[in-house]
Amino acid sequence: MPSEFELIARHFRRPRDARAAGVVLGVDDDAALLAPTPGTQLVVCTDTLVSGVHFPADTPAYDIGWKALAVNLSDLAAMGATPRACLLALTLPSADESRVAEFARGFFALADQAGCALVGGDTTRGPLSVTVTAIGEVPAGEALLRGGARVGDLVCISGMPGLAASGLSRWQDGARAADDVAIRHLLRPQPRLALGLALRGTATACIDVSDGLLGDLAHVLDVSSAAAGLPLGAEIDIAALPRAPELAALPEDRAREFMLAGGDDYELLFTIPSSSRALLPALAGRAGVPLAVIGRMTSGVGLRCLDAQGDEWKPVRHSWEHFRP
Amino acid sequence: MPSEFELIARHFRRPRDARAAGVVLGVDDDAALLAPTPGTQLVVCTDTLVSGVHFPADTPAYDIGWKALAVNLSDLAAMGATPRACLLALTLPSADESRVAEFARGFFALADQAGCALVGGDTTRGPLSVTVTAIGEVPAGEALLRGGARVGDLVCISGMPGLAASGLSRWQDGARAADDVAIRHLLRPQPRLALGLALRGTATACIDVSDGLLGDLAHVLDVSSAAAGLPLGAEIDIAALPRAPELAALPEDRAREFMLAGGDDYELLFTIPSSSRALLPALAGRAGVPLAVIGRMTSGVGLRCLDAQGDEWKPVRHSWEHFRP
Repeated sequence: MPSEFELIARHFRRPRDARAAGVVLGVDDDAALLAPTPGTQLVVCTDTLVSGVHFPADTPAYDIGWKALAVNLSDLAAMGATPRACLLALTLPSADESRVAEFARGFFALADQAGCALVGGDTTRGPLSVTVTAIGEVPAGEALLRGGARVGDLVCISGMPGLAASGLSRWQDGARAADDVAIRHLLRPQPRLALGLALRGTATACIDVSDGLLGDLAHVLDVSSAAAGLPLGAEIDIAALPRAPELAALPEDRAREFMLAGGDDYELLFTIPSSSRALLPALAGRAGVPLAVIGRMTSGVGLRCLDAQGDEWKPVRHSWEHFRP
Repeated sequence: MPSEFELIARHFRRPRDARAAGVVLGVDDDAALLAPTPGTQLVVCTDTLVSGVHFPADTPAYDIGWKALAVNLSDLAAMGATPRACLLALTLPSADESRVAEFARGFFALADQAGCALVGGDTTRGPLSVTVTAIGEVPAGEALLRGGARVGDLVCISGMPGLAASGLSRWQDGARAADDVAIRHLLRPQPRLALGLALRGTATACIDVSDGLLGDLAHVLDVSSAAAGLPLGAEIDIAALPRAPELAALPEDRAREFMLAGGDDYELLFTIPSSSRALLPALAGRAGVPLAVIGRMTSGVGLRCLDAQGDEWKPVRHSWEHFRP
């Protein structure tokens, strides 16, 4: 006789996933069986969302499902990969079938949009947390890495950084409107998969902004410096940062903090050679998201933010602390 | 400045993993990059262990690390796959570096034994739970599945089922001796990887025993019946079950319950054509584990256990409930 948890696990079994391209066998055996596309490399990542740490405890179940997959697909996007399959490890305090159904609806809405089959998983009892593993493919040698940025490269960002931080701030102030652009961006981030594909062959480095623009840029500087064997820095022009209307009413320092240190945006931060600048409008068109040049790679250690007058502005912090109760 | 959790994550970064066969890029980017072996299919699975649900809260950290990987490698073994890589999502209530170091020691002891590189993961704050994703390879078309058992096939088991249940019973009675065979089997199960490889081409169906021998055999019956398009059953000869010395002192019904419904053994339960019976000693030799014929596949629905007189014995339950506080 199946347990309540087995019944719940059945919400995640869909014939279409078993028939997806490259899926030889889905959720009905000890493990899934996948046929890799010849000539490709595998791109794999895993991320956990814990209730009360990575999302407020009163987040709608649909949005938890969406976001748990989105943060992983965002990592695939940052590698320039095409999503293929995912696995879902869901830990639940109780077997609330209607919440699970809503979770599944959000999860599959994004999975279907991204062409990512759910091929395996585990449902266990315990404090609410969700771990997704995503598997993508990229033609061998074409993955976007963090380590290729060079002096003189342009630093670029997709979308409008700081929007999710603004959404979290509104949420914490009690806002719950379903049509609030900032809250929607926080709860249902859109992984920039088309952009990742479009950037293959052009971007010299790429990362997704999960912890904050400056903090994530620092990772690019670290890895690119190590790869180049010489210290690299960057300058960010604050005036060049695309600013969401939702940030307009904020004090200037707060808006800057949201844009430069706010987390959870899941935009792509990338570098391109300055000679490729003219390609950006076409890339933005293909990717369906605005792209902006916000700075440049420099020689020598250091990550500086410059205001419109060219004076340095120092943020209080570079990275985001996830939501805490 | 790295957080405590980033420092802890560094316990899991090892140069040898980045250099492992098939690993193009390990833990230092948005995702890992793997090169699949041409001609193989990928085998992927994920399993979560929650403290107090899947292991007693006072389990040594070394053993939690070992077991979190072992239960996943056991799924690869049941598919006949060779482990290649794994990802570790670790949720910790606090940043206790010495416990994390012990956890890593146990995890890597098994990873190194199995040739499985750790290529990615996530460390988050929250109630203790561990989700591992394992990735293996199998020559295309050679995976061991659940659906190929046929009427007349012999039902076989590796090792000594019930040993882990006996270990849990002792643990709950307060036993903590490090050299207790049953407790050691419970805390550090040995995934039967060599057996999985040896069974390719011989076993008609295979599953690992995680929930209990009868419960897991029922999965084989379900999937094999559906594949064959006709109902399949099985008969188990209780007298043929290999009995660990640790079960000798138990009342007979208790011993049977441990062997037939005890979970957490991570032995392989498989079927072979009766014409392959003579291969078993050689297979056992290659796999380094004893193998026993414990029953046969029958036509018609039903899973019956027969005693030495040929009378049916009905167990109270078919499957294991994981440890609960």
